[in-house]
Amino acid sequence: MRAVDIISKKRDGGELTREEIAFFIKGFTAGDIPDYQVSAWAMTVFFNGMTAVETAALTEAMLRSGSTIDLADPSGVLRGPFVDKHSTGGVGDKTSLILAPLLAALDIRVPMMSGRALGHTGGTLDKLEAIPGYRTSLQVDEFRDILRRDGFAMTGQTKEIVPADRLLYALRDVTGTVESIPLITASILSKKAAEGTEGLVLDVKYGAGAFMKEAGLAEALAKSLVDTGTALGLNVKALLTNMDEPLGSKVGNFLEVEECLDCLEPGYLQSDKKGTDDMMEITLELAARMVVLGKKAADSAEGRSLCEDALKSGKPKELFLQNVKSQGGDPDKLLEMRNTYRSPVYAEIHATKDGFISCIDAMKIGRASVLLGVGRNKSEDAVCPTAGVEFHSRSGSRVKTGNKIMSVWARDENGLKAAIPGLEDAVSYSSTAPEPRQLILKEIP
Amino acid sequence: MRAVDIISKKRDGGELTREEIAFFIKGFTAGDIPDYQVSAWAMTVFFNGMTAVETAALTEAMLRSGSTIDLADPSGVLRGPFVDKHSTGGVGDKTSLILAPLLAALDIRVPMMSGRALGHTGGTLDKLEAIPGYRTSLQVDEFRDILRRDGFAMTGQTKEIVPADRLLYALRDVTGTVESIPLITASILSKKAAEGTEGLVLDVKYGAGAFMKEAGLAEALAKSLVDTGTALGLNVKALLTNMDEPLGSKVGNFLEVEECLDCLEPGYLQSDKKGTDDMMEITLELAARMVVLGKKAADSAEGRSLCEDALKSGKPKELFLQNVKSQGGDPDKLLEMRNTYRSPVYAEIHATKDGFISCIDAMKIGRASVLLGVGRNKSEDAVCPTAGVEFHSRSGSRVKTGNKIMSVWARDENGLKAAIPGLEDAVSYSSTAPEPRQLILKEIP
Repeated sequence: MRAVDIISKKRDGGELTREEIAFFIKGFTAGDIPDYQVSAWAMTVFFNGMTAVETAALTEAMLRSGSTIDLADPSGVLRGPFVDKHSTGGVGDKTSLILAPLLAALDIRVPMMSGRALGHTGGTLDKLEAIPGYRTSLQVDEFRDILRRDGFAMTGQTKEIVPADRLLYALRDVTGTVESIPLITASILSKKAAEGTEGLVLDVKYGAGAFMKEAGLAEALAKSLVDTGTALGLNVKALLTNMDEPLGSKVGNFLEVEECLDCLEPGYLQSDKKGTDDMMEITLELAARMVVLGKKAADSAEGRSLCEDALKSGKPKELFLQNVKSQGGDPDKLLEMRNTYRSPVYAEIHATKDGFISCIDAMKIGRASVLLGVGRNKSEDAVCPTAGVEFHSRSGSRVKTGNKIMSVWARDENGLKAAIPGLEDAVSYSSTAPEPRQLILKEIP
Repeated sequence: MRAVDIISKKRDGGELTREEIAFFIKGFTAGDIPDYQVSAWAMTVFFNGMTAVETAALTEAMLRSGSTIDLADPSGVLRGPFVDKHSTGGVGDKTSLILAPLLAALDIRVPMMSGRALGHTGGTLDKLEAIPGYRTSLQVDEFRDILRRDGFAMTGQTKEIVPADRLLYALRDVTGTVESIPLITASILSKKAAEGTEGLVLDVKYGAGAFMKEAGLAEALAKSLVDTGTALGLNVKALLTNMDEPLGSKVGNFLEVEECLDCLEPGYLQSDKKGTDDMMEITLELAARMVVLGKKAADSAEGRSLCEDALKSGKPKELFLQNVKSQGGDPDKLLEMRNTYRSPVYAEIHATKDGFISCIDAMKIGRASVLLGVGRNKSEDAVCPTAGVEFHSRSGSRVKTGNKIMSVWARDENGLKAAIPGLEDAVSYSSTAPEPRQLILKEIP
């Protein structure tokens, strides 16, 4: 077998065999197939796609490039159901921090291996690390221990998990081959399968602030993920959710931890906020599917009802704080820092018109947030825990010229100056109330 | 400017600017843009093509990656017209060795920079080097000197000429990006423009033994070459010629030199052979266009007539032998070696049926020739000067079972053994005489 023949076959529209795909990924990971052949191959996949069988073979080949985790511990004390969630990335998307303790409260284990902020999108690890002391590089034994004790654990991927994906992603990033459904599918699912989860709920986002702008493309990705995951023996469900606007009222690492603490309060669902909270609505719909995959409910409606009851019980909040302690943070200190742990570099955005806010553009907010210090453009950049944006008005809010729309905290003055025009530009106005957005477009399957 | 943005732009169907293309080729040649970005970009060009303007910009950027030759010497003694010929590669295609002295006899200078055999196709440099002592690595001053004295000179490319092409071709060869019309166009024309020729006749081959099997693709390449060459200020004409069967009656390095000597004999055109010689027919048609580009004739018919007269005069043969001496060979010794300089490892192919030979497959002969030692699969392999095939029958010949069809000489016994099945398989038979092939399909423009 020669790499160039495999490239040419895919280039000419052929279907690669399982053996050819395995040869290619194995050779790449071992350093026997050079980057320049892999990038050319990735471009053929971009143009010609992959069949469901090829995508599954690619995912499996990548999965096998490293070690996999068997979650159940040898003593048999740790048992499933293990259900995880993955989002394709958004702005203000903090659902993971609520989902993990919520599902744990319902006796579903959530073995969460997350990523970091990149480009305009936030990352769960960066948010957790905004809690002083919180460690996100757990060894497998500790991960399993915490998962048993708290019902969930949150960590980054170890280097041993799917090395092919780390190598391939770095190459795709600089060769214009990121936006390929089979390559995205294999990247996401190889990691999720390697971490040992049984069930997986996917939050596939579309819209201005999503990786896939068009709902049609996002749906194709969702279908590819569900089909491939199923072929690999996972129980997978996907929701297509809107990402035209940031989720929730806060964007920023510690700011988002705070918002999650608010949502975990036992009284939250009965409070005023609930009705207007897009973030919590999506969280509960994702959670409902996770409960079904965890076999604790027959359908989503029952799952959602169980989740609402659990939230009201306060158990998820307790588990969240317990996990903060397990992973090196100080729960009491965290609660004290609420609403005060902020960068001193501050500004406000005010309404420039009378009327309604018709949209707050997620992409513009995400890009401005990177300038504030929330995110990063290159994976080696550091993020600022205390930078971010709080929205005092959302789309649909009636405003008058001069009303405060956002509070803004930046890492430094330069970042603030650079971010302000984008934040201002993110807000659109209308004279009449805008139509409410459809948050969840579709469920797959 | 970032390489990844240029890749993505072309990937998404955009037209690259002259500056973007220059940035990319310059960066690649300097080692600033890595191979893996260039191979991904080459694959986007394979899929999305290039406009005429882009192809010209690419050719020019490659041309500028190294030094160019100004053929006219400082003293003003060497003057044009300079007209060259390029073939896209075939089996038994030895026209260059006849064209150069023929055109020189008509006071048209032929500054020939040629390549080597690769895959199933032969290479002019390998054929010339089969003449003991013949040097094909001339320095520019010597090249110019010989061109002035003999009217033509034959050399390989120096390293200073279009380094971008050498780098890019090596990368394309292993990344499935060879078969791209704009990339082929830029590769051919950047080198021809760099060598300083004014006129260029292109022999674009199609058929079983050609790089482009389909006439339609070959025609698209021919058009791209003519348009791009014209945009660069060259006078370009192209002929689409058939390469289903080997050209002429000999395939092999010294064997082909011999055949050219035969064709250069003053009596050749009046001999029996002439009427059946596809190789000489194509040579004369190419030569006729070169005469027109060299402004020595008003049209091809007049050009051809001048060429036939020149051949009959014996001047081209004299110039060929004079050039052999100029470039380090011994003309007397060459004439002595005629019909005797052969590898001792010999076999014959005999007809297996009564009837007509309907086809001798060029690709199968070319591939078998590599095994005999005529050609090479990798550019670092050595070739054997005395290996090859002589055809005693051609397509259209009436044969009886057991008639000798080919004499075969191999570098060694293993090569002979490996080549025989392919040589036998190359011959097809029919019970009635086959239709004569159309040698020249089209002229462009």
